[in-house]
Amino acid sequence: MPDTSPRHIRLTSHAGGYGALPIRWGAPTAAERGPIVGTTSKPSHRNVIGTHSGSYSVYRALAVAAGALSREHKPDLTNTSPTDFIGPYPQWTDPARIVSLDPWGARVAEVFAGEIAAGYDIRPTIAVTKAHVILPEVIDALQKGRLKADGTVLTPGGAAMVTKAAIEPVWWLPGVAQRFGCSEADLRRVLFEETGGMYPELVTRSDLEVFLPPIGGLTVYIFGNPQDLANPQVELTARVHDECNGSDVFGSDICTCRPYLTHAIEECIAGAQRGGVGLVAYSRKEGRALGEVTKFLVYNARKRQAGGDTADQYFARTECVAGVQDMRFQELMPDVLHWLGVKKIHRLVSMSNMKYDAITQSGIEVGERVNIPDELIPADAKVEMEAKVAAGYFTPGHVPDTDELKQVKGRGLE
Amino acid sequence: MPDTSPRHIRLTSHAGGYGALPIRWGAPTAAERGPIVGTTSKPSHRNVIGTHSGSYSVYRALAVAAGALSREHKPDLTNTSPTDFIGPYPQWTDPARIVSLDPWGARVAEVFAGEIAAGYDIRPTIAVTKAHVILPEVIDALQKGRLKADGTVLTPGGAAMVTKAAIEPVWWLPGVAQRFGCSEADLRRVLFEETGGMYPELVTRSDLEVFLPPIGGLTVYIFGNPQDLANPQVELTARVHDECNGSDVFGSDICTCRPYLTHAIEECIAGAQRGGVGLVAYSRKEGRALGEVTKFLVYNARKRQAGGDTADQYFARTECVAGVQDMRFQELMPDVLHWLGVKKIHRLVSMSNMKYDAITQSGIEVGERVNIPDELIPADAKVEMEAKVAAGYFTPGHVPDTDELKQVKGRGLE
Repeated sequence: MPDTSPRHIRLTSHAGGYGALPIRWGAPTAAERGPIVGTTSKPSHRNVIGTHSGSYSVYRALAVAAGALSREHKPDLTNTSPTDFIGPYPQWTDPARIVSLDPWGARVAEVFAGEIAAGYDIRPTIAVTKAHVILPEVIDALQKGRLKADGTVLTPGGAAMVTKAAIEPVWWLPGVAQRFGCSEADLRRVLFEETGGMYPELVTRSDLEVFLPPIGGLTVYIFGNPQDLANPQVELTARVHDECNGSDVFGSDICTCRPYLTHAIEECIAGAQRGGVGLVAYSRKEGRALGEVTKFLVYNARKRQAGGDTADQYFARTECVAGVQDMRFQELMPDVLHWLGVKKIHRLVSMSNMKYDAITQSGIEVGERVNIPDELIPADAKVEMEAKVAAGYFTPGHVPDTDELKQVKGRGLE
Repeated sequence: MPDTSPRHIRLTSHAGGYGALPIRWGAPTAAERGPIVGTTSKPSHRNVIGTHSGSYSVYRALAVAAGALSREHKPDLTNTSPTDFIGPYPQWTDPARIVSLDPWGARVAEVFAGEIAAGYDIRPTIAVTKAHVILPEVIDALQKGRLKADGTVLTPGGAAMVTKAAIEPVWWLPGVAQRFGCSEADLRRVLFEETGGMYPELVTRSDLEVFLPPIGGLTVYIFGNPQDLANPQVELTARVHDECNGSDVFGSDICTCRPYLTHAIEECIAGAQRGGVGLVAYSRKEGRALGEVTKFLVYNARKRQAGGDTADQYFARTECVAGVQDMRFQELMPDVLHWLGVKKIHRLVSMSNMKYDAITQSGIEVGERVNIPDELIPADAKVEMEAKVAAGYFTPGHVPDTDELKQVKGRGLE
């Protein structure tokens, strides 16, 4: 007799009158896949490790501790459903294609209405809304004539019309392990040990295959019709951007993060206006996912080293402090593109070879790569840019050699 | 015989040749306080629950799982020390004054040099560096003559000179419990249960009083001389700002977050130029620490409710979805001000009564409160602003009554 459910175990605890529902990752329909249940009020219903809201679960716990929030509170989802239809796409039911988010996460109130009515606390892990975004750099582009208002994609006042989605991480551990080339058992053990013992269930509950990690998620901004993202005939301009608070918000001149982001938004608006669609995916991976403390330590080490802040030592200084050059692991990044149904990116506004490789290796075609215009690179950011170009970043221009890298030098700490 | 160490237990495990060092929170010197040791490579050295880098500890674990990072790596701290002296201040050694960060966190290489030489893996939880920040709104203020370049605080090109510090959370649980008015035992149990079982040591290891939670930290930007922050004779302009990615980075017009932030930066620059000092503290508490998914769900519920997005229903919609109006808990926020030695804020660039109350109740004097100028409030953000003013936000103007709140209406989803 074949084992029809080799991995998943129907839990039999019935403290709440019924037990946990199974998750069959990648199953052909939402009903067969089953809901993600991370509730803390009915432990017998849980079918995941961890809980909702990423890191903010800690604040939720504080709210309960402070007596401000009832632990029994269930969200009232009235009127919260997505403003736009996204999917389902064939990519949603391919267990290898999406492993770090729940493709049904925006539609739980609809696709798991029966389970919610039966008393399960099922929460959206994705929310889709509409917004008007007003960036000074876009207003500048309007004033200088690089962009024109059309009243649809861009207003005369400089507001761009977007659909946006916030996405929390939902990790299917067997698939995540496969992406990183390790066994699921090793991934679970290392996640437990190297966080100082977070979630022992990672090692004790191999029947629970889904983990809601306490990390930041991502946000997508869509310029134009979201359904066009899945149509390879419609020109797609896209940037996948990793958070850099110091530049994205405060405009630090040591890197190109905000200038490249706002350039991408300008390209997305222009692309949508000529009948295409634009996409910015923004991931909470501050300082290459090393965190901002490490990032600032590296800044000091770069600017104080013998010979000054030169491009040839750029990666070495990060590695001395952090042990690696980068912890962003673009391996999981393409999941959001598959959630949106993307098959082809006509214009990828990124020079990163790591992002390019991850996207193309996941089966998405990439056409043109759009570099940041030279005039948008702050003087002090040339160190980073030249070091990256020498290390394999896409450039339509010259790739510096070792001697040239030594000559590219940033400001000291003064 | 008096018990000289009623709370702290000298751990006796010696797997690494020596054991964990005690932490005596609020002790008069760094040596007596003892270092925070969150290493994962020598478990016998650990004297905390959790590990470094907040949420990014999960990425660090991924790096080990992927074979990219040696679990034995210790950071090379050469040249990473703070660019500016901050403290020690009397507030550092008052265990009630600072409970959510390590005041010695920037100076571990100096104050715990002996322990590091003896083989303990002690990592900075704070990093202090210098930066030039260039914001389009500041350039606009220069061009319109509201700000003038002086070459010291602000260059003619619009770059503001700052000292900035990144700060990771370090929670002393007895003090955190006190802030929230609950017992330490309750705090520990709820933190464990309401995160779905994160860190059982919260409940099993009452001897470990310090927790490094996997949440985002904060960043401070200082305009002028950092040491002036501790001098109540020097005019201090300050804003404590909570992250709002949708506005801070993307300029969404539904709230006033970025306009208020950039107005505060303008005020900080002007204040530093007239001989004062400016401070922006930026906390990673997206969407009132509810996270962005909840925030977007609330946006949809607001804009779709019967009668439209009116100010009188503003807080109700958040509470329906999240169970509370706000999870930011400003109770911990003043810690960073005490770390910087602040005794008086002459100009607080915030209208929040919750922030004001938390700051003044922590013993810091507040002079003037600076509201956001009306012309900086986007049209669609008037719903939020009027709802907050009616609920107690500071305003030099009119406080709307219930009938008036019903008339303040935002855009629909169209």
